[in-house]
Amino acid sequence: MATREAERFSETGDLLDRLRAVGAARYHDKHPFHLKMHAGVLTPAQLRGWVANRYYYQKSIPIKDAAILSNLPDRERRRVWIRRILDHDGTLEHGGGGIESWLALARAVGLDERDVMQESLLLPATRFAVDGYVTFARTQPWVVAVASSLTELFAPDLMSQRIDALVEKYPWIDERGLQYFRKRLQLAPRDAESALEWVRAFATTPELKDACVRALEFKCDVLWAMLDAILLAYGAGTTGPQES
Amino acid sequence: MATREAERFSETGDLLDRLRAVGAARYHDKHPFHLKMHAGVLTPAQLRGWVANRYYYQKSIPIKDAAILSNLPDRERRRVWIRRILDHDGTLEHGGGGIESWLALARAVGLDERDVMQESLLLPATRFAVDGYVTFARTQPWVVAVASSLTELFAPDLMSQRIDALVEKYPWIDERGLQYFRKRLQLAPRDAESALEWVRAFATTPELKDACVRALEFKCDVLWAMLDAILLAYGAGTTGPQES
Repeated sequence: MATREAERFSETGDLLDRLRAVGAARYHDKHPFHLKMHAGVLTPAQLRGWVANRYYYQKSIPIKDAAILSNLPDRERRRVWIRRILDHDGTLEHGGGGIESWLALARAVGLDERDVMQESLLLPATRFAVDGYVTFARTQPWVVAVASSLTELFAPDLMSQRIDALVEKYPWIDERGLQYFRKRLQLAPRDAESALEWVRAFATTPELKDACVRALEFKCDVLWAMLDAILLAYGAGTTGPQES
Repeated sequence: MATREAERFSETGDLLDRLRAVGAARYHDKHPFHLKMHAGVLTPAQLRGWVANRYYYQKSIPIKDAAILSNLPDRERRRVWIRRILDHDGTLEHGGGGIESWLALARAVGLDERDVMQESLLLPATRFAVDGYVTFARTQPWVVAVASSLTELFAPDLMSQRIDALVEKYPWIDERGLQYFRKRLQLAPRDAESALEWVRAFATTPELKDACVRALEFKCDVLWAMLDAILLAYGAGTTGPQES
């Protein structure tokens, strides 16, 4: 029994290592657009292009999470997961939520909230990537879909780096617009913790482990593809947008 | 303009009439099993069969509602709809919820909660009907899926009749088990009100109106088919279960 326990832990240790390796290789903190953002060289138009496109991702998160909620077979886990939706949508009683905070960021970088909500700046490639993520969440076994959320393991480092960069290097952005990122600093670790616990507990076969690793790669691809589209359309710093 | 307004109202009036007509013709308050329940002639085994089978419906409600939530495009409506899931699942902070109340009813009628949760008494036809309802919610346009929930328009009358019948005619049932129905007396009208408002506002074409009427018929069929299966398996009062 002790041996089996030990095996189990070495197996889950291995899965965690593999998940962390995906983040080290493919998480979008290493994307040129983010590197330029942190270096402080993005123009207001480039930052606005990012905020307006990323809005489509933000507004799709609760839809994605409701799809996963609907695939979670027991209410104990649904009680945990539903907090993600409330965090992003806000509530009838208190309003608020991540989508509202993202619109505050949009205003803070000088965008017209209506343009953002009408998605007039949304690039097709952003839409394809985000819609692909929602479809993945709808159609994959819940543990695999949950694994795709594990980019949250890597998010806090990126968030704090981003907050520092935006405050120091883009003083023209109203600081109240950064509330979304400050909030994610608290929420991402909480969310990642339960998601990781479920993945480790339920992805017990080699096939499911592989599927969870691939799910995280897929999610990194979603985030990376969005930044590729934004870089292509707006450029990053002195790198102008590419000719089409 | 006044004429168009008048037309609009006569159209929605017409849709409401059609929805009410579906309830009058097909809602399961008229099913022989319920008539016998209210007449006070069900045996404990028959009531237990109903409670154990209906559990599968109860536990599927938040899954169905999460599927609809995931199809609702705007957060204002999701903030309204998510309350249904919280009502049935309860919350991490406070527990509770409709599924828990239904398990309390199961105990109150003398069932072992574990048998109910393991679904050892679940009839295939109950499962087919309920799974069909969840699939409908996942795959139909949100306004049509919402229309299928409008049996809640007819629920309060049935609930108060049921509470009276269970209290008066089945004194062996622990009254604390009836909390689920008492709670639905408050929640069903609140839920039906917003659902009806959305259906009237968004089902504006003849095709969508027809689809909403059919959705409510479909939902009535789900509830009716469950009772057919239960009646066939357990009988109702002196009507014994039919030979297979």
